[in-house]
Amino acid sequence: MYPMKIALAQLNYNIGDLEGNFSKIEVAIKKAIKDQADLIVFSELAICGYPPRDLLDYPGFIERIESYFAPISNWSKQIGILIGSPTKSNLASGKYLYNSALLFDQGKLVHQTNKTLLPTYDIFDEARYFENNSLFEIVSFRGKKLAITICEDVWNEAVLLYDKNPVETLLKKEADYLIVLSASPFDYTHHTNRINLLGGIASKFKIPICYINQVGSYTDIIFDGGSMVFDRQGQVIEQLESFKEDYCLISQDTFQSPSKIYQPKAKIELIHDALVLGIKDYFSKLGFKKAVIGLSGGIDSAVIGILAQRALGSENVFFVLMPSKYSSDHSITDAEQLANNIQAPYTKIGIQTIVDQFEDSLEPLFKGLDIDLTEENIQARTRGVLLMAISNKLGHILLNTSNKSEMSVGYSTLYGDMCGGLCALGDVYKQEVFELAKFINKDKICIPQNIIDKPPSAELRPDQKDSDSLPDYEILDQILYHYVDERKTKEEILGLNFDPDVVSRIIQLVNNSEYKRYQSPPVLKISTKAFGYGRRMPIVAKYN
Amino acid sequence: MYPMKIALAQLNYNIGDLEGNFSKIEVAIKKAIKDQADLIVFSELAICGYPPRDLLDYPGFIERIESYFAPISNWSKQIGILIGSPTKSNLASGKYLYNSALLFDQGKLVHQTNKTLLPTYDIFDEARYFENNSLFEIVSFRGKKLAITICEDVWNEAVLLYDKNPVETLLKKEADYLIVLSASPFDYTHHTNRINLLGGIASKFKIPICYINQVGSYTDIIFDGGSMVFDRQGQVIEQLESFKEDYCLISQDTFQSPSKIYQPKAKIELIHDALVLGIKDYFSKLGFKKAVIGLSGGIDSAVIGILAQRALGSENVFFVLMPSKYSSDHSITDAEQLANNIQAPYTKIGIQTIVDQFEDSLEPLFKGLDIDLTEENIQARTRGVLLMAISNKLGHILLNTSNKSEMSVGYSTLYGDMCGGLCALGDVYKQEVFELAKFINKDKICIPQNIIDKPPSAELRPDQKDSDSLPDYEILDQILYHYVDERKTKEEILGLNFDPDVVSRIIQLVNNSEYKRYQSPPVLKISTKAFGYGRRMPIVAKYN
Repeated sequence: MYPMKIALAQLNYNIGDLEGNFSKIEVAIKKAIKDQADLIVFSELAICGYPPRDLLDYPGFIERIESYFAPISNWSKQIGILIGSPTKSNLASGKYLYNSALLFDQGKLVHQTNKTLLPTYDIFDEARYFENNSLFEIVSFRGKKLAITICEDVWNEAVLLYDKNPVETLLKKEADYLIVLSASPFDYTHHTNRINLLGGIASKFKIPICYINQVGSYTDIIFDGGSMVFDRQGQVIEQLESFKEDYCLISQDTFQSPSKIYQPKAKIELIHDALVLGIKDYFSKLGFKKAVIGLSGGIDSAVIGILAQRALGSENVFFVLMPSKYSSDHSITDAEQLANNIQAPYTKIGIQTIVDQFEDSLEPLFKGLDIDLTEENIQARTRGVLLMAISNKLGHILLNTSNKSEMSVGYSTLYGDMCGGLCALGDVYKQEVFELAKFINKDKICIPQNIIDKPPSAELRPDQKDSDSLPDYEILDQILYHYVDERKTKEEILGLNFDPDVVSRIIQLVNNSEYKRYQSPPVLKISTKAFGYGRRMPIVAKYN
Repeated sequence: MYPMKIALAQLNYNIGDLEGNFSKIEVAIKKAIKDQADLIVFSELAICGYPPRDLLDYPGFIERIESYFAPISNWSKQIGILIGSPTKSNLASGKYLYNSALLFDQGKLVHQTNKTLLPTYDIFDEARYFENNSLFEIVSFRGKKLAITICEDVWNEAVLLYDKNPVETLLKKEADYLIVLSASPFDYTHHTNRINLLGGIASKFKIPICYINQVGSYTDIIFDGGSMVFDRQGQVIEQLESFKEDYCLISQDTFQSPSKIYQPKAKIELIHDALVLGIKDYFSKLGFKKAVIGLSGGIDSAVIGILAQRALGSENVFFVLMPSKYSSDHSITDAEQLANNIQAPYTKIGIQTIVDQFEDSLEPLFKGLDIDLTEENIQARTRGVLLMAISNKLGHILLNTSNKSEMSVGYSTLYGDMCGGLCALGDVYKQEVFELAKFINKDKICIPQNIIDKPPSAELRPDQKDSDSLPDYEILDQILYHYVDERKTKEEILGLNFDPDVVSRIIQLVNNSEYKRYQSPPVLKISTKAFGYGRRMPIVAKYN
């Protein structure tokens, strides 16, 4: 019934690294040939990696990609190859590119399917680059009929973002397989959504589906892989690993005795795994090995420290403790304990003499003016300068330790604790940071319990606590989730039984912090609405 | 022949300030009623201002906008009102908004035209928000036939970005006027392009055109206004002021004796006027009055100082001189001279003791390591901390002084001289900065001649000159223009007779600086390709 053998290659690409990506593609092709597969399938825009962003605006970049079509054609003398790539549209009018799935066989390109639905929302900008498809064909390949689609083309089922439904149009004609080339980013809801959506399509149209996703992190966007095969009843019968490169071969046997099915992971484990991959790939793809992290003795830097250690190894994490006169003793001992727990190197540099020197230098100008946030910011920025000096001198990348709650309300110092190459917790609310800490400690105490138990404090003035300026995180995170993630208006949130003054103040803080977030390091996206490319708000504006 | 009286209102809106924008709209309506106009025309998305970006994702925001339709309807009992606004599409599938032109008359909405061509390139993201139009109708209004279009809908003439041509489709039917509601951003080529394009359409279709643009600066995007009326021969017969709010009344007389036509301004004057408006609106729309600027004695901060003084007034510009042991005497005297020339207050704060304190604190860690860029960055970052402290304490916005050449090659310190709320010269190449300085001095010496004449230097080590690390700006700026603005590939630029090693090195510097630019303040766009929203490059990538 299913005599065709299909190999799925779930790979971790690097944007623009055509040579490196092609090497990986070749390795997978050779394996599939050895496995006597009829066809090997790669993900969307595999040759260049997704998202290439404005590299697509350089015609020379497209030509470099096209130069790989000849070697792929050559390999296709031995096996069918289905792979995603941008292609020139050659239209008299319209965008100059398509987002295409190319089928090579017997030494030549035998079929091209272009993407119809071009996601243009959140982090996606595909209408910026691509013209959309209007031709729907079933492809004959080795006696089987293939329906080939690309990512978003299967996503017009529940919420109708588009007035076309490529899957429905395609599957009006008979087909043996629906093959979906994808570059579908991670968020902690998405894998479940994919299973529901694709399972629904498989059972609705009574067709087996091969769904192939890329894996890896690309600056701010993490891809979890998790490629899958569905039978015509909509059951997952084969699943590739999440957060790792993986490969599988589908044959008649696969449909008779489903093999690898992974138990779904809980939200916090998914976030943990995604962030570790996000940090790891940021460093490795940029050619760096080591991270420097300012360790305050608080929960955020502790969690970042462990995530970095798991991504890079203990020997590649360098902690810097920078106490001031407001630092409590436990801040230092807790931080030292954490470093010792994971056997990571650390150093201690007091900031007080530098801070005093800044204040002395500014004294003539500030004479008679009240102490305010300025003095707190000087401390945070002094730490920023020290960390960046270490980053510059030792060639380590500074990891930022801000979380989504702080970033939302601007409870952070621009050019101070907002410094860094990557903001790994910038899409993780404070309550979720605590959950991450507990998850990290589940088998073995890495983060000293006192760091988890003590009340959060920035320690920028005597006896300061976060709760002096902000509502409890339990309340704060809920309000933020409604406003930032769900885009509810103030009026809608006021209807949800929060203190109206608190809601108004929090929303105003979020709106007033756009200028800060504009200059934040890239944030690893783990939710459906992260700061960065996916949320584009004006700085100069009057918000409600 | 043209008995209808049309008023054009070219206004400076604030994004999301519906109440403030509507007040301005009402003033113009009252004036037009007094002028006995039949119709008053406002620009694209006038009620909310353009570009509202992801505010459009908040359904509550759209409902607030819609609440202004009733008072506009009410005014329309006295005059026809044609105005741009987002409207809900109410489609079963597709995006939930249109970008619409609404015609109100006799107390009600009588016609709605939706935008067909949704620009989605460079700074534009309209496909992110809007569904496009497919209905083309001529509107009867007081015995005349109006063809109404929105901005991009007229821009499919020379370069065919779209497979539809709304103007051609519309004007197959007879019409008396083509009215174009626009939000067309400034770049120094654009006004001339508009005249050529619209003049061409007017003469091709033998139809008079009313073209109405918004004016003002919106974070990073400047709108120059320059609304125009064309006769059916394609001649400009009425023109509104550039970079200012303006209003005009078109009647039969206008077509008989063309009145206000402005001489086109030269490129540098356009850039000058645009930047002054950009700074002015950034401050006024955010509710700030005063700027703080680090004055180095070099050309960039000098030009920023004068632009800020022209935008905000001498009393609202506060200069800070921050010499180090590497600062030359002329840096200080030149900077003082500049401040005195424009009677602006300034202060002097030496950075050396702070820098020494940083180096002492880092000495145990850095012992035995070579002096390198780290020490230069500490100086730049110490200045950044001081300027931000002054910004925080006095409530002044820090103006950044980086230019496009520096930003391109990363010849700048993140969290150091890259600090600031707005980067006003970030789209101005160094050679253009020199031209600006000369233009500024054309009537009266504001910038001391020595600042213009001396070789550029960052003064971060003994006898340093920009030319130690970079090719001459004449060469550098050309290579950058080809690569950044024109998106030529390295191979294409190598074909243009530059030193191949220089080209390779410069392109590599540009590519390696994406992480810095990601955290830059918003850049005022004055060219066809500015850093910021209009240029979206991956940080983690392998560039060629």
